[in-house]
Amino acid sequence: MNYKIIFKVLGYLLLIIAAGMVAPFLIALFVGQSDAIPFAISIFLTASTGFILTRIPIVKMKIKAKEGLAIVTFGWIFASIFGALPFYLSGSIPSFVDAFFETVSGFTTTGATIIKDIEVLPMGILFWRSFTHWIGGMGILVVAVAVLPLMGAGGFHVFKAESPGPIADKIVPRIKDTAKILYTSYIIISLAEFILLLFGGMTVFESAVHTFGTLGTGGFSTKNSSIGGFDNSYIFIVISIFMIMSGANFSLYYDLYKGKWKEVIKNSELRLYLSIIAISVLAITINMNSHLYHNIFESFKHSLFQVSSIITTTGYTTFDYEQWTTFSKGILFMLMFVGGSAGSTGGSIKVVRILALIKLIKRELTKILHPRAVVSVKFGNKPLSEDTLLNISSFFMLYMLIFIIGSIIISLEGIGFMGATSAVAATLGNIGPGFGFVGPTNTYADFSDASKLLLSFFMLLGRLELFTVIALLTPKFWRTEL
Amino acid sequence: MNYKIIFKVLGYLLLIIAAGMVAPFLIALFVGQSDAIPFAISIFLTASTGFILTRIPIVKMKIKAKEGLAIVTFGWIFASIFGALPFYLSGSIPSFVDAFFETVSGFTTTGATIIKDIEVLPMGILFWRSFTHWIGGMGILVVAVAVLPLMGAGGFHVFKAESPGPIADKIVPRIKDTAKILYTSYIIISLAEFILLLFGGMTVFESAVHTFGTLGTGGFSTKNSSIGGFDNSYIFIVISIFMIMSGANFSLYYDLYKGKWKEVIKNSELRLYLSIIAISVLAITINMNSHLYHNIFESFKHSLFQVSSIITTTGYTTFDYEQWTTFSKGILFMLMFVGGSAGSTGGSIKVVRILALIKLIKRELTKILHPRAVVSVKFGNKPLSEDTLLNISSFFMLYMLIFIIGSIIISLEGIGFMGATSAVAATLGNIGPGFGFVGPTNTYADFSDASKLLLSFFMLLGRLELFTVIALLTPKFWRTEL
Repeated sequence: MNYKIIFKVLGYLLLIIAAGMVAPFLIALFVGQSDAIPFAISIFLTASTGFILTRIPIVKMKIKAKEGLAIVTFGWIFASIFGALPFYLSGSIPSFVDAFFETVSGFTTTGATIIKDIEVLPMGILFWRSFTHWIGGMGILVVAVAVLPLMGAGGFHVFKAESPGPIADKIVPRIKDTAKILYTSYIIISLAEFILLLFGGMTVFESAVHTFGTLGTGGFSTKNSSIGGFDNSYIFIVISIFMIMSGANFSLYYDLYKGKWKEVIKNSELRLYLSIIAISVLAITINMNSHLYHNIFESFKHSLFQVSSIITTTGYTTFDYEQWTTFSKGILFMLMFVGGSAGSTGGSIKVVRILALIKLIKRELTKILHPRAVVSVKFGNKPLSEDTLLNISSFFMLYMLIFIIGSIIISLEGIGFMGATSAVAATLGNIGPGFGFVGPTNTYADFSDASKLLLSFFMLLGRLELFTVIALLTPKFWRTEL
Repeated sequence: MNYKIIFKVLGYLLLIIAAGMVAPFLIALFVGQSDAIPFAISIFLTASTGFILTRIPIVKMKIKAKEGLAIVTFGWIFASIFGALPFYLSGSIPSFVDAFFETVSGFTTTGATIIKDIEVLPMGILFWRSFTHWIGGMGILVVAVAVLPLMGAGGFHVFKAESPGPIADKIVPRIKDTAKILYTSYIIISLAEFILLLFGGMTVFESAVHTFGTLGTGGFSTKNSSIGGFDNSYIFIVISIFMIMSGANFSLYYDLYKGKWKEVIKNSELRLYLSIIAISVLAITINMNSHLYHNIFESFKHSLFQVSSIITTTGYTTFDYEQWTTFSKGILFMLMFVGGSAGSTGGSIKVVRILALIKLIKRELTKILHPRAVVSVKFGNKPLSEDTLLNISSFFMLYMLIFIIGSIIISLEGIGFMGATSAVAATLGNIGPGFGFVGPTNTYADFSDASKLLLSFFMLLGRLELFTVIALLTPKFWRTEL
């Protein structure tokens, strides 16, 4: 393993993180709150560490698969450690473990918080907190791929290890261009939401923060009661729509731009994604209208928002859904295991995997009736290889295994079943709020430090799609030479 | 589809069911309770229907794959409808839906009951109720395969559709002999438990009933508080050991008999099965000793019993485990998804599938580090084909899908999350008791008829390993000609 290369790349990453802190620093300066100096110190520490690491002399810049895995995993950890500095140095979050948890939650676009009163925090801190969602959304390292030409072909390993979804659909042959296209869609859609939220009566600051939270499918807000604090149906609907957009494959927007309407409409992942949303919204609307709201628009509004928020793994809330029936809560819990599409900023298992596994089940049923038939699982016209199907299957199994064992460990905190299981589902799926102990009106503040670190680990695991991180934990990784 | 063949075989099956009712009929006569006449009527109705069906004239007795599936599914449904007659006609269970539920629960070796007071029932009825476990345990149709030479080669399709576990390990080339070997082990182990329970102070009747419940991994008892009602540590331990034995692959007993000790010890499924039991018992013993029992033997005794009972999908209880911590209950909940070994009478996902999927995950991790390596998943020395792995994966996915969607539908009953999820897990996994609404001190009596039928369907689905039944529900099954 070439540690020099790894640390050199991490150095560039830290420079990006430091650059990201400039915006909140300027806000803090401009508003004149107490967090300007902590930001200045954080920028200095992050940038200087980054600068020193980039000075590592390297003969040949060639990143191999193994180093790609190490760069991605350590990249997210480094970013979270340095990204936590402003929270810690400003005293907004007095415990470093808590600050680290909050930053991991930000970068992984989880949105689980340990802050009980958000509204008292200075604006620079709040901006930074949500900005981490936006940076994390498209992947700190997709930026790196597009920005750092020095990584060359090796960048592919980084992109592959980090890009969301099992099928790294190359829109254009070169990764650098792919990253640019995704990033351009990301920025354009962000601007659109920002403007629409301004129209809804949000301030510039609030619009920016909630755009970051939506596009990154993160979920950090400026209000303790999340989006519910705005009590504005227009805002609820706008954010619902942009959450759904953020959970779709971003390459589809490029297709739309290229005029390929038919291909987008025929996209089977998009169809399944929208069908799950439609059926869930309908079921919850009917169920909650008769049990709680007794007003069809109220029922629809909260149902649409909460379904969109959970399936896209955003985690914003407009209503304390703990008051819902077991049926409606059950649907939300199920959606925690669906997640966004491949190539979106959403986390969890992802629609494309669910789709592949459903197609696999169909194939097995056909094989029972026609034992000797050779049937392949197809996406569009392309057949999926048995290897890809086995990879998806093992991902699903590993996801459930981590969820189950994780829940049992977290239950040692002495919390209820719903709290323990949903805390793991909500961190592993990068969602944020869960049920019970971590319900929409609660925070993660009351967990022990050990649990907070474990849950931070789950957030990283989920964001990096399990295998990348798990591979690093095997003795084989450190033993074998590639 | 050749309906004539299907109904003819079902006729033979009904004759076997009628023969099975002779024992409880004789007990009822001997004890002189009110259930002798209802048994006589049930035997007459079942046997005469069976006789008429066996008279169906058939030119050529050749069972194809499709007919095999239909025979198995309808066989279990027919057996449950006719098997429910004694409960219904004797008035022990006044509702026919309830009687059907109880019988499905018996034959599928689930052990979920709708009877609130078991202890008032006549002995013939109690015997029949538990005898269905014993008959169901090794499969109504494995008996048919061994007994009916007329089925010839077609019997293989029936055996394949019904035999527990994904790998139909043929011990000896001919199915008839395989069935006989399994059945002989089954009878010998039953006799051993029966005698050991007699030594523990149980009556002949109680020993028989609980032997049926243990060997079939069913769980029907003669006491309202299940095995806890005996309050006898010797009995607790004996039943624990026989539950564990019943959850192991029965072909291993044949290997032991043949002196193949080494092969048995090396069996990787057995190792994982015993390891999961050992770790779970240890964790719960430590956890509950400090939280509740404060006596290491008490803790161990209940922990061993409950772990064995749930993992083998038996469902007997010695203690109201609802009083346990979330941690210990969480382990039990997890075990509901493990189940027994292939070739055992236990249900649920089964250890061999979990093992295959864990090996698949390991392989994927290796492939991340060595992308071009060809690694196969092995059982012993035999590599598993990609097809088998995909079949196991799709089984796991389908199992979780049915569990999740089933839980959401059952939650419409207005019960809690634990009740809804564990009711589905406990019926689909053929376990019996769950948590909350269906906890160890409750029954399934308070569900609506619709839910009882749905849960009965889940019991059948689980017992017949999903695909057999699901295939029958596809339009393709009824459309295509094979």
